[in-house]
Amino acid sequence: MRGFLVIGNKATTSPFSLKNIPGAGRMDILCRCISQAIFLSHSIRRSLEVYLLLLGDPSPPRVVKFRSDEIRRMSPDERSVAGLIRKALKFEPGREWVEANSGVFTAKKDLKGLLEELSHSYKIYYMREDGEDLRRIAHKMERPLFVLGDHLGVKKEDEKVIIQFAEDIISISKLSLMAEQCITIANYELDRAPGKL
Amino acid sequence: MRGFLVIGNKATTSPFSLKNIPGAGRMDILCRCISQAIFLSHSIRRSLEVYLLLLGDPSPPRVVKFRSDEIRRMSPDERSVAGLIRKALKFEPGREWVEANSGVFTAKKDLKGLLEELSHSYKIYYMREDGEDLRRIAHKMERPLFVLGDHLGVKKEDEKVIIQFAEDIISISKLSLMAEQCITIANYELDRAPGKL
Repeated sequence: MRGFLVIGNKATTSPFSLKNIPGAGRMDILCRCISQAIFLSHSIRRSLEVYLLLLGDPSPPRVVKFRSDEIRRMSPDERSVAGLIRKALKFEPGREWVEANSGVFTAKKDLKGLLEELSHSYKIYYMREDGEDLRRIAHKMERPLFVLGDHLGVKKEDEKVIIQFAEDIISISKLSLMAEQCITIANYELDRAPGKL
Repeated sequence: MRGFLVIGNKATTSPFSLKNIPGAGRMDILCRCISQAIFLSHSIRRSLEVYLLLLGDPSPPRVVKFRSDEIRRMSPDERSVAGLIRKALKFEPGREWVEANSGVFTAKKDLKGLLEELSHSYKIYYMREDGEDLRRIAHKMERPLFVLGDHLGVKKEDEKVIIQFAEDIISISKLSLMAEQCITIANYELDRAPGKL
């Protein structure tokens, strides 16, 4: 069991046009995060969840959750993933999860509420460039869920909340990578960690 | 200096609609390869080249080359990259490179001709699941260029050609990953290799 939570600082909270996915508050980044997290070549990782926290207008916060084991009819291209997010955004969100499509759920939750919920199932790790090298500690991780920001990073006030819940702050690279690259590499390091594959 | 050559077995060799990028012979995969190879967060890697060998109808083979140092006005989303590939495909290709956009070039070359040319500047490594672990040999690599296939892999006859030029066969993971994930991880391992960053 493994998870990622990506914070979309400006990601729209209403259905958007598939003709301009970046224009929807850089939803393209979140689509690539889903795709790079969940897909292998011609298959899907098991027991993996990705949570997108959408903080853009008009009605933040909003969460869209993808559960790999139940996903149907999704391809790794941005437009395919965006179509599923868009469909989820058509649902009126409540405090409880509602399933918008097989494996895709949505709810109205803020960062604190979401992390409270996730901390029952996962150990939370915050991804930040100055954290501890993931490669060194990957073998010790059980049920990790990694929290990371989009192109705008993580706001100071959100960071305070995350750190309350986080087991550790971990780093992927000394270079500043795109969110989806961090996810690809986190999966890779966990796959390679002794006893994990 | 670092390079990637991705073989698009069905990737179209004529201008395609940006409304259906996967429909253009899975051009979405090649777009993600470009994006994941070249971009960092808010910046572009230096001295990196990506070659796309397009083998789809109507007029294969065709190569589109991206040189990171000269790229202008490209974003990491699939549609932005696809727009540049599409523009390159509007040029009538000859045997010599023609620049279709800043940093984007195209020519009519087959795999053998391309590898002959590349082997003057690069050491060629073939990516295959049963190869030698990249992590073990990354520190020894100088001017590597990695050759890999799209979702259809590499055809037997193309593999024979690649192996003639390859220094080594290297492997990224025991899992079968998507092409763009292999690229992200190759960059990561090279970045981390002693003396490389």
